[in-house]
Amino acid sequence: MTLLRRVVIALGGNAMTGPDGSATPRAQRDAIAVAARHIAEVVATGVQVVLTHGNGPQVGNLLVKNELAAHVVPPVPLDWNVAQTQATIGLTIADELDACLAARGLPQRTAAVVTRTLVDAGDPGFSTPTKPVGRFLPREEAQRFIALGQNWEDRGPRGWRRVVASPEPLSVIDVPAVNALVTAGFVVVCAGGGGVPVVDEGHDGTALHGIEAVIDKDLTAALLAGELGADTLVIATDVPNVMIDFGTPAQRPLGAVTAAELRGHAAAGQFARGSMGPKVDAALRFVDGGNSADTQRRAVITSLEHISDVVTGDDVGTVLTAL
Amino acid sequence: MTLLRRVVIALGGNAMTGPDGSATPRAQRDAIAVAARHIAEVVATGVQVVLTHGNGPQVGNLLVKNELAAHVVPPVPLDWNVAQTQATIGLTIADELDACLAARGLPQRTAAVVTRTLVDAGDPGFSTPTKPVGRFLPREEAQRFIALGQNWEDRGPRGWRRVVASPEPLSVIDVPAVNALVTAGFVVVCAGGGGVPVVDEGHDGTALHGIEAVIDKDLTAALLAGELGADTLVIATDVPNVMIDFGTPAQRPLGAVTAAELRGHAAAGQFARGSMGPKVDAALRFVDGGNSADTQRRAVITSLEHISDVVTGDDVGTVLTAL
Repeated sequence: MTLLRRVVIALGGNAMTGPDGSATPRAQRDAIAVAARHIAEVVATGVQVVLTHGNGPQVGNLLVKNELAAHVVPPVPLDWNVAQTQATIGLTIADELDACLAARGLPQRTAAVVTRTLVDAGDPGFSTPTKPVGRFLPREEAQRFIALGQNWEDRGPRGWRRVVASPEPLSVIDVPAVNALVTAGFVVVCAGGGGVPVVDEGHDGTALHGIEAVIDKDLTAALLAGELGADTLVIATDVPNVMIDFGTPAQRPLGAVTAAELRGHAAAGQFARGSMGPKVDAALRFVDGGNSADTQRRAVITSLEHISDVVTGDDVGTVLTAL
Repeated sequence: MTLLRRVVIALGGNAMTGPDGSATPRAQRDAIAVAARHIAEVVATGVQVVLTHGNGPQVGNLLVKNELAAHVVPPVPLDWNVAQTQATIGLTIADELDACLAARGLPQRTAAVVTRTLVDAGDPGFSTPTKPVGRFLPREEAQRFIALGQNWEDRGPRGWRRVVASPEPLSVIDVPAVNALVTAGFVVVCAGGGGVPVVDEGHDGTALHGIEAVIDKDLTAALLAGELGADTLVIATDVPNVMIDFGTPAQRPLGAVTAAELRGHAAAGQFARGSMGPKVDAALRFVDGGNSADTQRRAVITSLEHISDVVTGDDVGTVLTAL
């Protein structure tokens, strides 16, 4: 097999929240401690490692804090909340991973970079917000926020929930900094929560500013992996493989798969929109974006426990290649 | 004069809050936009620039949010709050400074690094907390938090206030990452709020974890500047010079001063403990820490408006050298 050089690993919620989805500081730290052991195994193989991660429950908690303290301290915009989760999750990954690396006698250390992702102010997501964030509230309470200009939707028996734009990531603005750190030997945590969404009203970098939105973390991971020249994108989740005919008697795991095959499954509606769908989409985008002069790109969707097996070449997970 | 190569600039509260101390997102962004223009002038001279900053009002706001939402979402520890302010301030500096750099046609861009600062779990600050944080509350409300294990003090007519440990910074853990970025040509924002305080229970990097404390940002700036091999530390504040006999008819600004002279003034009680004192202390620590083989170290305390004059060698501010 091809020698791996640079791997981007996208950590899912299970790598940083409790088994019940709990996002207390303790639960986050405990989950990250487990993830760090698996990540250190990957670093030990000698590949360059870049980590990115989700932040749904963490952003949800910050939105509640904004709301409940608004009569005393000014709420901060959603893009600042994304940045805040990059810091707390990045910090905790750095502490836990550095401890694992030091314990293994490895020289690498971890750096967490606050990361901005460029989006288009004209993205259809802004006129039609679809991504639910934060807690469920009864209709009457939701209407108070609707009056303030927020979008809320009736989500059924659990109540109403705020929906925000989830624009397409166009470019990870801080890739040059991430690249400098990776090249210098650091494991880098970046683009958490898909990155802090920013628009550039100057269209030349002269008028960057944050915009209230959240970006799909797997789609940003695919973009990041391409921009960093990674050969492998690993999407670490809570299942070892993507499933076909999931939940039916014909259910079966996908192993090695080509882009054409996976695209066929996606077109047949095999993958749930808010769940496996974006991961499959991200994997396809990364592999499709490779050109023949590159080392052949590979995207792997598997469980956190298997990420080091991916790198050592063991037969694990759903492994997507162009051909 | 000596050619400057690497400058650490410590930005005070006036660089990131409104003229009335307001820390709304808008006020923070407006203040940072002004600071960014001055910083871009420094970058334009060709020196390497590392930025650090305070975060008092921002941490105060987060503590209130923790408190008022505690019945719905889990509070996060104070060290996480410090990390959160590094992200929001770092992000905003990066947006505003990148816009100024792009507008000037300069190639440098900004990177914000989540930064940990090592402290000693045995620091006397932990047994005798002295640093006030967050909002004032009436005694009855303060006692609710005292019952939870927090330290609160009667601060007079405005009420009670939480006090936390402010331990000595021993080492900025993420200096190697900052150094890699600066060397690669980035302007780096780091160690905001003095850095996220961490202790190492393993004493060899194998058991890092955050601890509830805040570190003096100027003392960390001095440490950071030394560890990064900077030749100049600039402490940007809201006055052009350190004053002697401040508030008396004999009041006069300090210009060029040696370490021995400044130490004499400090010993004579010229500098207020929570205000100019730590800045003078930081300047002395940086200059004292230089050895003769280095480019001679220089520490400058002046107003934000003058930071580029410091670099171009104009006669501004209080300029401390060893001899």
